[in-house]
Amino acid sequence: MSEPLSHDEFASRLRAIGEASYHDRHPFHVLMNEGKLTREQLQGWVANRFYYQTQIPIKDAAILSRCPDREIRREWIRRIHEHDGWMEDEGGIERWLRLGESVGLCRKELWQHKYLLPGVRFAVDAYVEFCRSHSWLEGVASSLTELFAPSLHQKRLEAFRKFYPWMGEQALEYGKTRLVQAPRDVEFALRVVLERARSWELQKRCLEALHFKCQLLWAMLDAIYLAYVIGVRMPQPPWSEA
Amino acid sequence: MSEPLSHDEFASRLRAIGEASYHDRHPFHVLMNEGKLTREQLQGWVANRFYYQTQIPIKDAAILSRCPDREIRREWIRRIHEHDGWMEDEGGIERWLRLGESVGLCRKELWQHKYLLPGVRFAVDAYVEFCRSHSWLEGVASSLTELFAPSLHQKRLEAFRKFYPWMGEQALEYGKTRLVQAPRDVEFALRVVLERARSWELQKRCLEALHFKCQLLWAMLDAIYLAYVIGVRMPQPPWSEA
Repeated sequence: MSEPLSHDEFASRLRAIGEASYHDRHPFHVLMNEGKLTREQLQGWVANRFYYQTQIPIKDAAILSRCPDREIRREWIRRIHEHDGWMEDEGGIERWLRLGESVGLCRKELWQHKYLLPGVRFAVDAYVEFCRSHSWLEGVASSLTELFAPSLHQKRLEAFRKFYPWMGEQALEYGKTRLVQAPRDVEFALRVVLERARSWELQKRCLEALHFKCQLLWAMLDAIYLAYVIGVRMPQPPWSEA
Repeated sequence: MSEPLSHDEFASRLRAIGEASYHDRHPFHVLMNEGKLTREQLQGWVANRFYYQTQIPIKDAAILSRCPDREIRREWIRRIHEHDGWMEDEGGIERWLRLGESVGLCRKELWQHKYLLPGVRFAVDAYVEFCRSHSWLEGVASSLTELFAPSLHQKRLEAFRKFYPWMGEQALEYGKTRLVQAPRDVEFALRVVLERARSWELQKRCLEALHFKCQLLWAMLDAIYLAYVIGVRMPQPPWSEA
């Protein structure tokens, strides 16, 4: 039975996971931020990432459903509002749909997940299943990739403006909003993880949850990169119903 | 409400899915069968595919657990025996471990899934989850990729002998056994699917189950190909426990 890490040491281990493994270093993001993606490749990314966007409120509801602490739930529910929309705010899913329109996709094919790659679906479904089958604290820890999101959003917004100006202003709305929301959300999540993971055993599970989340974000881009950059795709059978 | 397809038409649609989408056409299998893989690439494939092998009896038990028909269960349980071993037969998992040793991996690292890629894990876990959450008939239909397995096993055995003779005779045991088992197993599975999917709705679900299975086999090779041939890998954090 090991002693728990100090808050500082625990926080620095959490940060080290993201610094090593966050998907900002994936070759697909590197190409995107260097302005080297074609319109079709951007479409593939937007359409596939849309499936992830649609599952965020589902995974956050799974975390809520496992959390017995009212104070935590009162904060966590904000994330569902942020994506589904609430009151006057249309929400992140709607903003992502507009990003899709900016790259030339229509809402109907986005909602039908017409371009969804199996590897992306498996990774995203694994995330929802993770939040259903693990403790709420591990679910919260898995969200700590947001520690590393703002600098990626910043870089992406600059790249969109500089290299893909044809996408227009509405393509920037999702990222601009996340630049405001993510730091506030993750500050709360980090405080909860540092305070509630009181044993080394719980700290270890939180570190593993964050590592798992890095793996799934990376695996999504792996599938997108292989299909849209390398060009490897499963040939489809001649019937549309299967 | 559409009429059900005739057995002939239904069987030919099932076959068309495998003919288009079975993973024998994946570039990783093409490289393997042309003798173009290195020892390290073969190790990556054997180690990752081992995770799939370990989950076969689990998914078959999930199918059993959903099947109310004693006659079907009496046949289906044979698949668990084939992989876990039964009486004097050591089973497919043991034969796969020996294939691992043939390429220079040790049993301990195989059982620890030390080289398991996240994309492979997500795809295999999606298969187990599919068999848990879908009807036993869809589980049975998903096994029909075995219609296409014998010719791939045959090609692989020839490639192992011709291009990778250093692997030795014991590397061939798994494939040789499957060449006997798979045709018998799939004959039963195909008969059950043709007879029990009596409506177009059920037939459609069986076609979709087979398509899903092709997607997950393909996605496993996608992850292996990207990591071991293209060389894209998520950088690991500096601590071993996460």
